[in-house]
Amino acid sequence: MHLVRGEGVWLFDPDGRRYLDCYNNVAVVGHGHPRVTQAVTQQQRLLATHSRYLHEGIVELAERLTATLPPGLDAVLVVNSGSEANDLAWRIARAATGRSGAVVSSYAYHGLTEATHALSPEVWAAQERPAHVARVPAPDGYRGAYRRTEDGWAERYAAHVDSAAAALGDRGLAAMYIDPAFTADGILYPPPGYLREAARRVRALGGLLVADEVQAGHGRSGQHLWSFQASGIEPDMVVLGKPMGNGFPVAALVVRSGLLAAVAEETELFSTFGGNPVACVAALAVLDVIAAEGLVGRAAEVGGYLRQGVLGLAERYPVIGDVRGEGLLLGAELVDPQTRAPASERAHQVTEAMRDRGILISATGPAGNVLKIRPPLVFQPEHADLLVQTLGDVLAQD
Amino acid sequence: MHLVRGEGVWLFDPDGRRYLDCYNNVAVVGHGHPRVTQAVTQQQRLLATHSRYLHEGIVELAERLTATLPPGLDAVLVVNSGSEANDLAWRIARAATGRSGAVVSSYAYHGLTEATHALSPEVWAAQERPAHVARVPAPDGYRGAYRRTEDGWAERYAAHVDSAAAALGDRGLAAMYIDPAFTADGILYPPPGYLREAARRVRALGGLLVADEVQAGHGRSGQHLWSFQASGIEPDMVVLGKPMGNGFPVAALVVRSGLLAAVAEETELFSTFGGNPVACVAALAVLDVIAAEGLVGRAAEVGGYLRQGVLGLAERYPVIGDVRGEGLLLGAELVDPQTRAPASERAHQVTEAMRDRGILISATGPAGNVLKIRPPLVFQPEHADLLVQTLGDVLAQD
Repeated sequence: MHLVRGEGVWLFDPDGRRYLDCYNNVAVVGHGHPRVTQAVTQQQRLLATHSRYLHEGIVELAERLTATLPPGLDAVLVVNSGSEANDLAWRIARAATGRSGAVVSSYAYHGLTEATHALSPEVWAAQERPAHVARVPAPDGYRGAYRRTEDGWAERYAAHVDSAAAALGDRGLAAMYIDPAFTADGILYPPPGYLREAARRVRALGGLLVADEVQAGHGRSGQHLWSFQASGIEPDMVVLGKPMGNGFPVAALVVRSGLLAAVAEETELFSTFGGNPVACVAALAVLDVIAAEGLVGRAAEVGGYLRQGVLGLAERYPVIGDVRGEGLLLGAELVDPQTRAPASERAHQVTEAMRDRGILISATGPAGNVLKIRPPLVFQPEHADLLVQTLGDVLAQD
Repeated sequence: MHLVRGEGVWLFDPDGRRYLDCYNNVAVVGHGHPRVTQAVTQQQRLLATHSRYLHEGIVELAERLTATLPPGLDAVLVVNSGSEANDLAWRIARAATGRSGAVVSSYAYHGLTEATHALSPEVWAAQERPAHVARVPAPDGYRGAYRRTEDGWAERYAAHVDSAAAALGDRGLAAMYIDPAFTADGILYPPPGYLREAARRVRALGGLLVADEVQAGHGRSGQHLWSFQASGIEPDMVVLGKPMGNGFPVAALVVRSGLLAAVAEETELFSTFGGNPVACVAALAVLDVIAAEGLVGRAAEVGGYLRQGVLGLAERYPVIGDVRGEGLLLGAELVDPQTRAPASERAHQVTEAMRDRGILISATGPAGNVLKIRPPLVFQPEHADLLVQTLGDVLAQD
């Protein structure tokens, strides 16, 4: 696909054909949002340099971000990508705990650097099993070991943290990384009890908890700005990724300064980077737009409406075995209705057929059979209607 | 320091006071260059999203970059920072060679991720010695083991590659990383024989050679677009960093596709990133400006003029023990004239006094006693005059 222009929820190819973007989480407040564009272009003219000098943007951004987070999370490190932020979190976790083991979910994705690739079983090679990384089963209440119909199923999943940490042996648990939506694992979005129980166990083991908000943050869950907040937990570090600049490459790690202090004594960790002034104004403009346009509430509202539409399809088309998600991050799991076996090939066909009809979605999960619906937060009910109508048309053709 | 605006070689604080930027290599074609600014702002309005879809910018950028490099270097991976590019080079080197050891210079810097921090002795903690990384002495012809006055001194330094690789033991040599200017090591810029001999030995050992052009690339050396080219070697991978977008966060790894093929079979390495359309037009505009304004030649010309000025100061002020560099990357090493001991505190004082007089330079090297002069390539003779005049005034005050 060749795309040349974006506007709101729409992407355009060179012939002017438009596509409804229901997939790209980078343009979180919509493609080409005028407020972000203006902030970026204005700052680009004034000063656009990565430097060690102070500028107001980075100070304001740090203050604004920490004001949205639990009080303990008081230090902000601005970097260029979610990979860099997760990698930095890993270096801090190792240095601050003196340990070297990690726990991640079974099909997690946390980045492309060597350190974060090790934390990303989704992209491990066939035989790749980093010795310092242990996995917990993702909290899949639909087809996993514990089902949503059982009381305390989410907490039972969380209890696997203990055995995973034990498997790390002498390395010890430095950190557990969690995407609260478990996006790569199939958009599982477990109930708040999961995060609470996992956090409790990680803490009891002396490890740190990293909330990776690259996928589900910036209001997408429709409840809070950051998806972990629904659970009331206080992570030790929070990672914000590319949606942060609505396409401008910027990411951040928010961390308890106490952890940083321990690290700073150990090594010169933070000497060479900082927030580009343009990156900072882009990130500030995104926060402004989310607040001014009430996008967290709208994600809940339109997401709820979209969810009802997809649930309606699930009643008509039993190939949709499960519908999950919160706000504007939804997963529709395609299965063989008789056996519940993952309908991976069908999911691939559906995403292709949707694209041919001008709607961009994707498929995710270990079997690639979960339709991934993740539009910009400026998505409107009429866009939801178009998506549901078209998906119905595609599913009707078998 | 608080800076709010940049224009050409000048930076401005909120009171309108201007500073001559002789330090920041990010704004390689000058702060706020209209051609780059226009390209970025126009593309920002059209489409600014990190995506898996094709767009013309990334195709054109890949073609333009490979056309500037030896024919074997035929694949381009666009990322967000030099750290990410060096990290990716390391993952590729490990996968392609099946080995896990690295050789770097004694005070090298290659990035902030866990993997590239290990390759960066400049920022190691006091006791940090990654077991998989061996160091060669930096080719310091002024105060090192072999002096510029000896025939073959550079090749003698390069011969240390063999003993360093041997120290890696069973790990084997996956890659040697070289900044051809040895900037962090004190701006050493050894003669071409060094790179040739080092490359020959690395190849004989079955390792790969990574040329890190983040500091010295993009025409700064005044000879070629990429600083390794003066030696005629053909690295296996070339890393381009932040100057690439004149402040826009973009970086790239250029690699032989044969190496990539080996890696792609091993693991899904390249699934989640690509060149942001804005990053690509920024990088293309920078290449355009370098060509249109003849900045490689101007770096040689103005750099040569500047060098003469600094050499003149060295005659008057024996605290300048050595003047090194090529084009617009110059180092002036401050020493005790009697003992040749590094005058680290004096170098710090000089950079502070220069800043007070409105000129930004820095100090580098293991002892922090090498004045680092690295202005945007649009630097003019009158700027060189101002720098030399002011540096003379500062050195006169003892």
